[in-house]
Amino acid sequence: MHTDLVAALDIGGTKIAGALVDADGRLLLRAQRPTPAHEDGDTVMRAAESVLAELTGSPLWERTVAVGIGSAGPVDASTGTVSPVNIPGWRDFPLVDRVRAVTGGLDVTLVGDGVAMTAAEHWLGAARGHDNALCMVVSTGVGGGLVLGGALHPGPTGNAGHLGHISVDLDGDACPCGARGCVERIASGPNIARRALDNGWRPGPDGDTSAAAVASAARSGDPVATASFERAARALAAGIAATATLVEIDIAVVGGGVAGAGDVLFTPLRRALRDYATLSFVQRLTVAPALMGTDAGLVGAAAAASARRAGEAAALLK
Amino acid sequence: MHTDLVAALDIGGTKIAGALVDADGRLLLRAQRPTPAHEDGDTVMRAAESVLAELTGSPLWERTVAVGIGSAGPVDASTGTVSPVNIPGWRDFPLVDRVRAVTGGLDVTLVGDGVAMTAAEHWLGAARGHDNALCMVVSTGVGGGLVLGGALHPGPTGNAGHLGHISVDLDGDACPCGARGCVERIASGPNIARRALDNGWRPGPDGDTSAAAVASAARSGDPVATASFERAARALAAGIAATATLVEIDIAVVGGGVAGAGDVLFTPLRRALRDYATLSFVQRLTVAPALMGTDAGLVGAAAAASARRAGEAAALLK
Repeated sequence: MHTDLVAALDIGGTKIAGALVDADGRLLLRAQRPTPAHEDGDTVMRAAESVLAELTGSPLWERTVAVGIGSAGPVDASTGTVSPVNIPGWRDFPLVDRVRAVTGGLDVTLVGDGVAMTAAEHWLGAARGHDNALCMVVSTGVGGGLVLGGALHPGPTGNAGHLGHISVDLDGDACPCGARGCVERIASGPNIARRALDNGWRPGPDGDTSAAAVASAARSGDPVATASFERAARALAAGIAATATLVEIDIAVVGGGVAGAGDVLFTPLRRALRDYATLSFVQRLTVAPALMGTDAGLVGAAAAASARRAGEAAALLK
Repeated sequence: MHTDLVAALDIGGTKIAGALVDADGRLLLRAQRPTPAHEDGDTVMRAAESVLAELTGSPLWERTVAVGIGSAGPVDASTGTVSPVNIPGWRDFPLVDRVRAVTGGLDVTLVGDGVAMTAAEHWLGAARGHDNALCMVVSTGVGGGLVLGGALHPGPTGNAGHLGHISVDLDGDACPCGARGCVERIASGPNIARRALDNGWRPGPDGDTSAAAVASAARSGDPVATASFERAARALAAGIAATATLVEIDIAVVGGGVAGAGDVLFTPLRRALRDYATLSFVQRLTVAPALMGTDAGLVGAAAAASARRAGEAAALLK
């Protein structure tokens, strides 16, 4: 059977990936280019166009009915523009128009990468079957997205769920975003590593000072490495509890490189959540590792496009 | 013209108020009893029933099609029960069933009081015309509610938007809820007054140590009183910015007794919001005083009931 396909684009500071995604979330065709992140905007766009050309050139393209884009943020779905922090050549860049121009005028949906990951985890991953969920990526940065009332909640600009930049320590360290004590400033991989080094942890003979190396040290019982993960876990717990208290979620799904630390992160995270999620209606909240891996961006971009089409169809029937 | 009416019930620790509300939000008939807050659950219920008897005994009752309840929280709309902190006789009290029993089996909608106030401000007050809004009450406690995508977002249990108990200071003072550094622990009226007293502010000859007296001193230039309001403003700003970053709101409406301080609160609040609401998609956020006054609970309970009926009608048409 030849069902409809959705073209997905996943735009990050390191690579631009594309795929044709079927109704079961399978990637039938993939393409990828490195992101020329420090070139001018048109050069970056040519890399994206080159990915799209591989998709539109395929015999599968005739079954493609929509395009979904998940992009490093901030994005602005209301204007169809993106301004990714790590791609300085794109500021208010009209990505939606430019993609529409090379994809035959198909409907294009734009969301932030945290929202895309959330769409993927809700469709086929750890948040499946949960009507109210927070999904988050903890790695170089901390991003996220929300499912509310059974549907993806991208918000008007496609950035909702951006947990990394809520302040959980209003007098805390200055964050590059301009605020203080943001979740990302405490819980991202580089901040976990920095805090361990500042407090006297030293890497092994390989000189690896990544958060993964700190996790490994914590697993071997290093108290400073353990404390750095515990601090990250407290910040994440405060942020997750705030989200649950504000919008009532019943699961928080955590992915990204830092989640790869496993119990070193999840054990103190679950413990700290009991300290911060105290009101009766948030106490049943559970935490689970993400399941969708590195394809989450592509699968989620496709899911976000499909969700918008379904939403618009339902609205027409009203 | 004889349009449909909704019966509204507003349950607080001090009084139980009721009204019949028309489609324009007018209160056609009112009733009220003091809450026997320290009596057993059935005695409290008899006060509520007495309010309802005044409504059902009216000739207007035959036009009444639904009942809306806004109650001090926590509530559980999923089970129809309430456990108001200030009414110890009600723990998992089956309020919805009890109200339905004395109102002829009409459909009963239950939400928290912060959600009710939000429904009122969205319908007829300061959040009117805003599709994404946070409304909050800052008084003895700090509560709130959310409008998302043009509709009230009570959440599955009717408690969403409970801004008072998100932590903005994860190492801060212990809060009675069990967490630390909650917005309420810093910004409620009693905490504003306590902090001013702790830092050396002294009341005038009338001995008034309320937050209103602290506001009055701040207006006269007292630096300790001013600093206590500024601290409250920072906590509120961090909480409002967190909400905007998580769900994308474009207005925060602030009501309750502490909002009565006017510029003493709103000027530092708007300033602090610029410090914490830094990402591009939250920078357009505005802050406005609430407009609905003490009837917000009744008007909002009616609005929440009407919103649910409209939502169910729309779902039937899908």
